[in-house]
Amino acid sequence: MTSGAFLSAAGQPLRLGVAGLGTVGAGLALLLRDNADLITARAGRPIVITAVAARDRTRDRGVDLGSCRWYDDAAGLATDPDVDVVVELIGGAEGKARELVEAALANSKPVVTANKALVAVHGEALGLLSEKQSTPLLYEAAVAGGIPAIKTVREGLAADRLLRIGGILNGTCNYILTAMRETGRDFADVLAEAQALGYAEADPSTDVDGVDAAHKLAILASLAFGRPVQFDSVHVEGIRQIGALDLSAAKALGYRIKLLGLARQAERGIEARVSPCLVPHTSPIAQVDGVFNAVIAEGAFVGRLMVEGRGAGAGPTASAVAADLIDLARGKPAPVWGVSAAELEPVRSRPISEREGAFYLRLSVADRAGVLADITAILRDCGVSLNSMVQHPAAEAGADVPLILVTHPTREAGMQDATTRIAALPVVSDTPILIRIETI
Amino acid sequence: MTSGAFLSAAGQPLRLGVAGLGTVGAGLALLLRDNADLITARAGRPIVITAVAARDRTRDRGVDLGSCRWYDDAAGLATDPDVDVVVELIGGAEGKARELVEAALANSKPVVTANKALVAVHGEALGLLSEKQSTPLLYEAAVAGGIPAIKTVREGLAADRLLRIGGILNGTCNYILTAMRETGRDFADVLAEAQALGYAEADPSTDVDGVDAAHKLAILASLAFGRPVQFDSVHVEGIRQIGALDLSAAKALGYRIKLLGLARQAERGIEARVSPCLVPHTSPIAQVDGVFNAVIAEGAFVGRLMVEGRGAGAGPTASAVAADLIDLARGKPAPVWGVSAAELEPVRSRPISEREGAFYLRLSVADRAGVLADITAILRDCGVSLNSMVQHPAAEAGADVPLILVTHPTREAGMQDATTRIAALPVVSDTPILIRIETI
Repeated sequence: MTSGAFLSAAGQPLRLGVAGLGTVGAGLALLLRDNADLITARAGRPIVITAVAARDRTRDRGVDLGSCRWYDDAAGLATDPDVDVVVELIGGAEGKARELVEAALANSKPVVTANKALVAVHGEALGLLSEKQSTPLLYEAAVAGGIPAIKTVREGLAADRLLRIGGILNGTCNYILTAMRETGRDFADVLAEAQALGYAEADPSTDVDGVDAAHKLAILASLAFGRPVQFDSVHVEGIRQIGALDLSAAKALGYRIKLLGLARQAERGIEARVSPCLVPHTSPIAQVDGVFNAVIAEGAFVGRLMVEGRGAGAGPTASAVAADLIDLARGKPAPVWGVSAAELEPVRSRPISEREGAFYLRLSVADRAGVLADITAILRDCGVSLNSMVQHPAAEAGADVPLILVTHPTREAGMQDATTRIAALPVVSDTPILIRIETI
Repeated sequence: MTSGAFLSAAGQPLRLGVAGLGTVGAGLALLLRDNADLITARAGRPIVITAVAARDRTRDRGVDLGSCRWYDDAAGLATDPDVDVVVELIGGAEGKARELVEAALANSKPVVTANKALVAVHGEALGLLSEKQSTPLLYEAAVAGGIPAIKTVREGLAADRLLRIGGILNGTCNYILTAMRETGRDFADVLAEAQALGYAEADPSTDVDGVDAAHKLAILASLAFGRPVQFDSVHVEGIRQIGALDLSAAKALGYRIKLLGLARQAERGIEARVSPCLVPHTSPIAQVDGVFNAVIAEGAFVGRLMVEGRGAGAGPTASAVAADLIDLARGKPAPVWGVSAAELEPVRSRPISEREGAFYLRLSVADRAGVLADITAILRDCGVSLNSMVQHPAAEAGADVPLILVTHPTREAGMQDATTRIAALPVVSDTPILIRIETI
C-alpha cells in the first residue's frame, strides 16, 4: 500500500497538518523540535509541522508554531496541498475527528491518529477506505500510549497465531486500584485525588467504566485474530463497585485486583471483555502498578510476551505518533489491520456467558445461623463448587458481616445465576461483588 | 532501501534458502507450515523454503523438507537463482556463516539471520555492504529470541532519544541465578542441571561468561545510540563467581541478582557492560525469572519500557525470523542500523572505570579484632562510603566469616582500587566478590 502523494517527495520534508493542540499535540511539536536531528536520520527526511487546527491560537504551548498555517476548521487540513500527512489528535468516534480522517483518506492524504474511539468504532470502514485509496492510516498512539503495542502485534508477532491478547489498558484505573490497595482508601476518595493530579478526567466515566480499555482491546483483538474490529461485542465492566475491602481481601488470598482487557480465541469464537480481575500476586502483570500499562500477548510459537510502559501522557503518546510518522516517511507501512480487508474473517463473538473460570464473590450477610446453608445450597444447585471461604467477624453485635467466597473454575452463566439468586436472599444486604479470577 | 530481486516478485512466493537445520531451522520450517495461511495473508504472498543447507539429510526434523534442494555447502544458497532470501542459522562470527551472508548480500540477495555474534562483530561492515547493495539484512532473532527487541528499538521507539538500553539478555544465566536463589544450591550444581535440561550448552562459557549477552547488548546499543556497533568496547563479566551465599545475602538486603546488559548515554560517551547486578526486588526486572529475557529501554519522551518474553528456543526464535521475512515480503524494511551508515556517529566508549554507582562487596575474613578497622580504613582512603554492613557468625570457632558490605554510590575506579587493596590484607581469604547495584 503506497500513496504517491507522499512517496514522490522522498528526500523532501514530510509536512504535517496537525489537528488538535492539546497535551499530545503540544507534546508532538516539542518532540519533533527536540529530536529533529535523529528523526531526520531515521526517517530519511525531516518531519515538520506546516499547518495546525486548534481553537485557541494564543495559548502558550511551550513551542513556537508561529510559522504554521492555522485553520479554525480542521477539515481544511485534508485539502491543503502543502500538507502531506494529517495527524488527527482531536479525539472522539464521531464529529470533526471522523470527518477529517475520512476526508483526508478520500483525498489520498495519509493519516496518523491517536484516536482509539474512532478506530475501535469505525475501524473496519476506515480500513476499507485506506485500502481503496492506497493511503495509509496508522494509529500506534491509540493503544497503550508509548508502548509500541500495535507494531508489536501487527509486525513483531506477525508470523505467529495468537491465542490471547490484552492487558492493563487504562492507566487511570490502574492508578486508582494501586492507590486503593496501598492506602486502604475507598474508590471515591482515590478518584478525587487522581482528578486533582491530572490522572483522571473531570468526567471519569470513559476511564473508570472500562470504555477506554474496551476501545483498545477491540483494536488489539482485531489485529491479533484477523477479524473486522467489533467494539460492540466487547463485554465491559468498570471499577466503581470495587471497595477497599476487596483490595485487602484479594491481598490476603494472594491476589491483586487489576482492570484487565482480555481477548482470546476460544472454542466457539472470540471472547473479549474488560473487567476487574483477581490475578495471582506473583504474576508479571500483578507487578504493573500506578499509571503504567501492560500489553500481554500469547502465541502458539512465541509463547507469552509482556510489554510494560507509560500508557498515556504527552511524551509517550507523542513518541508513538512520531514513530508512525517515521514509518510513513520511510515509505511502506503495513495495511491498517495487518492484512488486506478481504482477508479479515468475521469470526463469531463468544458471549461472556460461555466463559469458564474461577470467581471471587463478596457478600454482605446477616450474622446468624443458617445463612451459609442457604448460600451454599444455591451454589450447589447452580453447579458451582467452592474453593475457599472467609468470613470476617462483625464490627459490632448484630451488624452484617462480609463473607468472601472463592470458587473453583465454573461456567459464567451458572455463577451469574447463583449470584442473582443469592442477592435475592433476605439475609443478603447490598449488591454482591463478583470478580473474575485470571491466572495469566 | 529496496532490492529489485525480491520486490519484483510481489504476489509470487518468497522463496527461502535456509542454511542450518538445527533447533531454530526446524522450528522455522514447522512455523511456516503450521501458520502458512496467516503468514501468506500478512506477508501478502506465500513464504516457502525451496532450498536448505545442512550436514545431515536423513535426520527427522518433524517436518517434510523432501521437496527442497539440498546443499552440502551453504555458500550455494547465495547464488541459487531460485532463492529470493537467504536465512542464515549457522551461527558464529566467522567461517561459513560470515561467508554466506557476505556472498548473499554481494549477490543482492536479502538476508535474515539469527546470528548475534556475526552482527555484533561484523555489523558495521555488513551494514555498509547492505546499503551499497540496496539489499536488506534483518536480524530480529539475534537478540532476545521471541521478543521483537530490534523492531521495538529501531521502529517502535524511533522518534525518541534513548538514554538507556539493556536488560536480561541471556536465559541460561537467568535460569541458573533463579534456580540458585530458589533452591540455595551452588553454581556448579545448578549449571549441571541446566545442561541436563537443555538450557545450557555442554560448553557453557559463551553464556555464563557473559559473551552472548554482550553480543546482544552491543547490537542494541548501536541501534539505540546510532553509533557503529562496538562489541569490543563492552565490559564483560559472567556469573561463575556468584555463590549461593550472595543470592541469600542479596535477598536479605532486599535485592535480587541478575546478569544485566546495560548501555547508557553518559556524560563522556557510551557506557556498555554486562555484569551481575543487584536490583531492588520490587523492580520490574527483578520479577523476570527462569529462562525469560527482558529488554528495558528508557527514552527522554517515552519514559521506561520493558518487554519480557522467551529469549530462546525453537518457537520464539522461529517467530522472530519469520517476522523479518514478512517485513521483507511486504517490501521495505528499515536500514540495518535504523539510519544510513553515513549517519552513524563513532561516539566515545566510556570505560567502566568512570562509572558511578553503589556496590555490594562480599569478603571472607578472619574472625578477630581489628579486621573491620583495616577494611574500613582502606575504603575511607579510597573515598568509598558505606551504606550498610552485615557480618555473619562463624560456622565454627576460628573459621573465617563472610562479611558483606554495601556502599553508597561511588566511583568505580576507587572501589576497584579499594577491593584490590582489601584482597591483599592477610586477614582476607578468598577472592572478594564485588557486584554492582543498579536501581533500574
